[in-house]
Amino acid sequence: MTTTTDPLNQVDFETVAGLANAIAADPSKGATVWKADVTWKGGFRTETRIRDFVPTPCDEPSGLGGGDTAPNPVEQLLGALGSCLAIGVAANATAREIAIQSLTVTVDGDLDLSTFLGLTQGHAGYEGIRAHITLESEADPAAVEDLVRHVVSTSPVGHTLAREIPLTVTHR
Amino acid sequence: MTTTTDPLNQVDFETVAGLANAIAADPSKGATVWKADVTWKGGFRTETRIRDFVPTPCDEPSGLGGGDTAPNPVEQLLGALGSCLAIGVAANATAREIAIQSLTVTVDGDLDLSTFLGLTQGHAGYEGIRAHITLESEADPAAVEDLVRHVVSTSPVGHTLAREIPLTVTHR
Repeated sequence: MTTTTDPLNQVDFETVAGLANAIAADPSKGATVWKADVTWKGGFRTETRIRDFVPTPCDEPSGLGGGDTAPNPVEQLLGALGSCLAIGVAANATAREIAIQSLTVTVDGDLDLSTFLGLTQGHAGYEGIRAHITLESEADPAAVEDLVRHVVSTSPVGHTLAREIPLTVTHR
Repeated sequence: MTTTTDPLNQVDFETVAGLANAIAADPSKGATVWKADVTWKGGFRTETRIRDFVPTPCDEPSGLGGGDTAPNPVEQLLGALGSCLAIGVAANATAREIAIQSLTVTVDGDLDLSTFLGLTQGHAGYEGIRAHITLESEADPAAVEDLVRHVVSTSPVGHTLAREIPLTVTHR
């Protein structure tokens, strides 16, 4: 007879720690490449294929000329940030032996459509993005403060948005 | 009796042009706010709710300690870029009366895991992102060249990634 208990926060921390040790021993192992394949489906509808997962649909709201069948790209971008922060909190809380009772991240951002619509030249992207993490935990507030600070300083999506990233677009 | 035909590229260009005209007349109408709500589901699993759409799952691959049930945040980010470029091509091709036969966008990016895993301080995000647009069309290659150039210069997600965006993270 065996007794099993869920690991803290249901996080497979052994794998995370093993990966960190492997990269510490050989930093070249930290280099990763990620991919997404998007197919246009007519109108403003697209489908994104990532690895072997069910394709993710995308569309624009009807007010923007879309079919209103799915979130649009700038909303998906905010979702990616929220998930990245949530996963960062889960990983680092577990490393610090902080049990999470519940965790949500709300994200919003301001975007002026003028450049996208060709009315002005300039910045077509978000002018600013705000994320708010609600973490229910019995940990000391100072420990939670430090946890969140660390997560923000190590967030892959957070850094990609907050910094200038070299972006190359080619076509044929 | 009425005869209807699909609009060019199935794009509701009348709505897009109407919106552009409304914003040209009153630039304050171009200001939009977008939102996403993320809920942690245990481990590295999350769910993103956007408006009333079915929630989008997110997870990490098993090699990163996840359950491998869905794309991860950095992959979702690439998908958002690909969809944004595809929608930009569809919108602007239609404005230029270019018929699209098919359109795909493949996106990839390089990311070093060392900072996310706390091994180094520095840049946790993408070091570079590449998108490749494949557009099948009978348009003149120079017209396609100019179309793509315009799309890249007006892409909301493209600009958000390529530029520094003010990012604020709060918690409670």
